[in-house]
Amino acid sequence: MLEKLKARVYRANTELVKSGLVIHTWGNASARDRKTGLIVIKPSGISYDKMKAGDMVVLDPDGNIVEGRYKPSTDAPTHLFLYKDWDLINGIVHTHSTYATSWAQAGRNIPAFGTTHADHFHGEVPCTRRLTAEETENDYEINTGKVMAERLSGLDPLAVPSVLVNCHGPFSWGRDPEEAVYNAIALEEIARMAFYTVLLGNTGPADVHLLNKHFERKHGKNAYYGQKKKK
Amino acid sequence: MLEKLKARVYRANTELVKSGLVIHTWGNASARDRKTGLIVIKPSGISYDKMKAGDMVVLDPDGNIVEGRYKPSTDAPTHLFLYKDWDLINGIVHTHSTYATSWAQAGRNIPAFGTTHADHFHGEVPCTRRLTAEETENDYEINTGKVMAERLSGLDPLAVPSVLVNCHGPFSWGRDPEEAVYNAIALEEIARMAFYTVLLGNTGPADVHLLNKHFERKHGKNAYYGQKKKK
Amino acid sequence: MLEKLKARVYRANTELVKSGLVIHTWGNASARDRKTGLIVIKPSGISYDKMKAGDMVVLDPDGNIVEGRYKPSTDAPTHLFLYKDWDLINGIVHTHSTYATSWAQAGRNIPAFGTTHADHFHGEVPCTRRLTAEETENDYEINTGKVMAERLSGLDPLAVPSVLVNCHGPFSWGRDPEEAVYNAIALEEIARMAFYTVLLGNTGPADVHLLNKHFERKHGKNAYYGQKKKK
Amino acid sequence: MLEKLKARVYRANTELVKSGLVIHTWGNASARDRKTGLIVIKPSGISYDKMKAGDMVVLDPDGNIVEGRYKPSTDAPTHLFLYKDWDLINGIVHTHSTYATSWAQAGRNIPAFGTTHADHFHGEVPCTRRLTAEETENDYEINTGKVMAERLSGLDPLAVPSVLVNCHGPFSWGRDPEEAVYNAIALEEIARMAFYTVLLGNTGPADVHLLNKHFERKHGKNAYYGQKKKK
Repeated sequence: MLEKLKARVYRANTELVKSGLVIHTWGNASARDRKTGLIVIKPSGISYDKMKAGDMVVLDPDGNIVEGRYKPSTDAPTHLFLYKDWDLINGIVHTHSTYATSWAQAGRNIPAFGTTHADHFHGEVPCTRRLTAEETENDYEINTGKVMAERLSGLDPLAVPSVLVNCHGPFSWGRDPEEAVYNAIALEEIARMAFYTVLLGNTGPADVHLLNKHFERKHGKNAYYGQKKKK
Repeated sequence: MLEKLKARVYRANTELVKSGLVIHTWGNASARDRKTGLIVIKPSGISYDKMKAGDMVVLDPDGNIVEGRYKPSTDAPTHLFLYKDWDLINGIVHTHSTYATSWAQAGRNIPAFGTTHADHFHGEVPCTRRLTAEETENDYEINTGKVMAERLSGLDPLAVPSVLVNCHGPFSWGRDPEEAVYNAIALEEIARMAFYTVLLGNTGPADVHLLNKHFERKHGKNAYYGQKKKK
Repeated sequence: MLEKLKARVYRANTELVKSGLVIHTWGNASARDRKTGLIVIKPSGISYDKMKAGDMVVLDPDGNIVEGRYKPSTDAPTHLFLYKDWDLINGIVHTHSTYATSWAQAGRNIPAFGTTHADHFHGEVPCTRRLTAEETENDYEINTGKVMAERLSGLDPLAVPSVLVNCHGPFSWGRDPEEAVYNAIALEEIARMAFYTVLLGNTGPADVHLLNKHFERKHGKNAYYGQKKKK
Repeated sequence: MLEKLKARVYRANTELVKSGLVIHTWGNASARDRKTGLIVIKPSGISYDKMKAGDMVVLDPDGNIVEGRYKPSTDAPTHLFLYKDWDLINGIVHTHSTYATSWAQAGRNIPAFGTTHADHFHGEVPCTRRLTAEETENDYEINTGKVMAERLSGLDPLAVPSVLVNCHGPFSWGRDPEEAVYNAIALEEIARMAFYTVLLGNTGPADVHLLNKHFERKHGKNAYYGQKKKK
C-alpha cells in the first residue's frame, strides 16, 4: 500500500545522506498521506545503503503499524505528534546536521542575519527550551514533539519550517516530504553562515523591512519569485 | 537567437553549482551581447538539474522579454542596472556563497590580507551600506544595483570585480560570463581565508607595496603573469 | 591464515580513508581473533592505495609476527596493550582525524553537549594526561596504551569507546573492527559539532537525564533503538 | 628532453588540484634533474585541465628557457633561488592552500601542537618577515626566495620542509617532487588542526620530548616507522 509515497519517503531519506546532512543512521524522514491520514516513515536503525523503498513503515496516526516488517524510527511518536498538531504539514525530516545541531547544542535561536535566511524563514529559527527530567524520562519522544509545538505556538509552521530542539538537533517540515528535505538543506546552510557571521562580530539581525521583502517576494500573496506562485 | 551566448550563460550557471557556490536555486548568472546590447539571464526559480541552455531568457536593456518562455531571474533588474552603469562589464554572477555571504551579513569589507586577494582585487572587497526601508519597499532590485554602483563609485569595476551587498550576498562580474564565474570562485576562497585570518588575530591588511605588486604583475600595464597579457 | 579477518581489517583501514578520517598513512586499524587471540593489523607506512588484504600482519598477543612480510604498524604495541587490558574489545582504530585531534592538541575532554554525543558516548570523551619524558623516551607505544587505560579506569570501554591521547590524537574501539570504525566516524563528527558549540558560547554539558535517556534507549538493557537489541 | 621528469612534475601539479590545495592556477610545482641541474616547472597561468606533461618548461639554473613553448611560472625565480641555496632539495611546490595561507596572512609561525606536526616538521613551521618596499619592487620573486632562505637559516630544510611567506602563502619541498607534494598536503592539514587548536584555547606547543620522539621515530637515525628507513 502507498507504494508511491513509500518511494518518495525513501528518496527523501537518501537525499539527506547525499546532501551531507546525515551520516550513519542519524536522521529520518516521513510523510503523511492526505487521503487516508496514514504516515510513512523510515525504519529504525537500518543503514541507508541497505534500505529499500519497500522497507518504509506505514503507521496510523496513533502509531500502530499498518504495514511493514520493521520497527519504525524511534522518533516516530515525535513525527506523529507534529502531524496531529499541524494540519498543513505532510512531510517531516529530522537530522543531526552539523551546524544546525551546533546551534541546538548551544541552545540558541538562529538570528535572521540576511536575505538567505529570509528567503526561507520568517524571523529567527527558534530553539526550544530544554526538557525537564520528567518529560525526558516518560514519553520522551512525544514530549519532544510537544516542546516543538510549544515553541512554535503563535507562529505559522509554514513560515518557520524548522525548529532546533535544545541539546538535540533540527526538525524541518513542509507541505510534502520533498519540501521538508529542501528546508532541512536550507536550514543547514543558513546555520553555517550564521555561525560565521557571529564569529565575524555581528550579533543583530538584518532590518525587518529587508527580511519581510525577501520572505514576501518568495512566499507572500504577491510573490514574484519563481515561475508559478506556490501556495 | 543568441544560442551560443545562451549556452555560455547556461554553463556559467551550472559552473556555480559545480564549484559549490550555489545550492538550491540560490544564484544566477547573466551575460550581455556586445553587438545587440541584449542580456541573456537564468530563468527564475528553475532547479539547476532540470534547466537547459534553451531555457535562458533574453531581455532588452530595459528588461522586456525578447525571447524565452520563462520569467527571468528575480534579480534581473539588478543585473540590468549594472550593465547600464558599467560599460566594460559583459558578465554578472550573483551567489549566496557561504563565506562571502557571511562577510555581507556581518556588514564588513573584506580586507586585503595577502597576495591571493591582491591577485584578483585591487584593495578591499567593498560592502555596501544597508538599504533604507523606502529603497527596499519600492524598486528593491533596482536599488540593489544602485547601492552597488554607489559603493563602487570612484573605483574601477574591473579592478574590484565583486561587491558584497549588505545583509545579502556577493555579486561578481567580468568582461564575459566566464570571467564573472572565475571572480566569484576567487572571491569565495578569499573570503574564506580572510575569515580564518581574522580569527587568527590579524586585523590589518598587507603592505600596499605588496598588494600593488601582485595586482600589477597580473593585471597592470606591464603584467608578466600568464602567457598573454589579457587586456 | 585468518584471511577473512584480514579482509575485514583491510576494509576497516580503507574505510577510514573513504570517510575522510585519514590522509597519507595517518591511521591504522586492527582486530583480534577471538578463538586464537591473534591480532591482525595494518603494516607500517604502506600507502592505502597500494595496500592489499594479504598485506595485513598477524601478531601474537606479545607482538611477535606470526605471519606477514611487512613490519606491523608502529602503533602495534599500543593496540596490543589495549587488547590485553580490555577483554571485550576486538577492534581498534587510530586516526589523526581533524577535529578529534584538535581537541587532543588542546588537551581537552569533549563535553557531552547533546544527544548525538549521548547516542554514542556515555559522558564526555576523555583526554589523557601528557606522557612524561621518561614514558616517552622508553616504551613509548606501550606507555601510550597505558595512559589510555589509566584514563579509562573506572569507565566501561564499551560505553566510552574512544579516548583522546594528549597532544596526539584519538583511538576508538568496539566489539569488532567495523564497530571501531563506526565509533571513529561518530567521534569525529561529535568533535566537530562540539567545537562549533564551544565557539557559539556553550561551555556546559546537556542535562544528565537527557544524556542518560539517549544512551540507554540505544545501548541500555531496555534499548528500543534499531531492529534488534545489539548486546 | 627530461620527458620522465616532465611527467612527474605534471603529475605533481595535478595532484595539488586533486588534493584540494589549488584552485584556478594558484599553485606551481617544479623539480630539479640531479644529473644536468636543469629545472622542470609548470608554465604560467595555464589552466590545469588543459595542461599536458609536454607543456612543462625546462630551465637552466639561471632561468634561461632550455625547452618549452610557454613562459615558465612567474614564481620560477623563487624556485631557482631555493634550488641553488639548498643542495638536497629536488622538488618544490607553491600553493595558496586555505589554512596555510591564512596563517601566512596572520604572519604567524605554526606551533608544534602535536604528533601529527612532529611526524613531518621538526619544530614550528616558520613564517618569514614581510618584504620591504624595495625588496618588493625590484626582483620580487628572487627576494621571496631570499627571505625564505633567511628564515630557514640555521635550520635543516629537510627537517622543516615548508615555510610560510608572510602575507602570501606556503612553499613546501623535498628530495623529489612527490615528497614536496606530500609535504604540502601534510602542511595544509597541520595548519588546519593548529587553527582549531588555537580556537580551543591552546597557545603552547607540545612537550619537546614528545615532538622529538615522533620526529625521530620517523626521520631519525634509528627511525622505525615504515618498511624501510628512507634517508
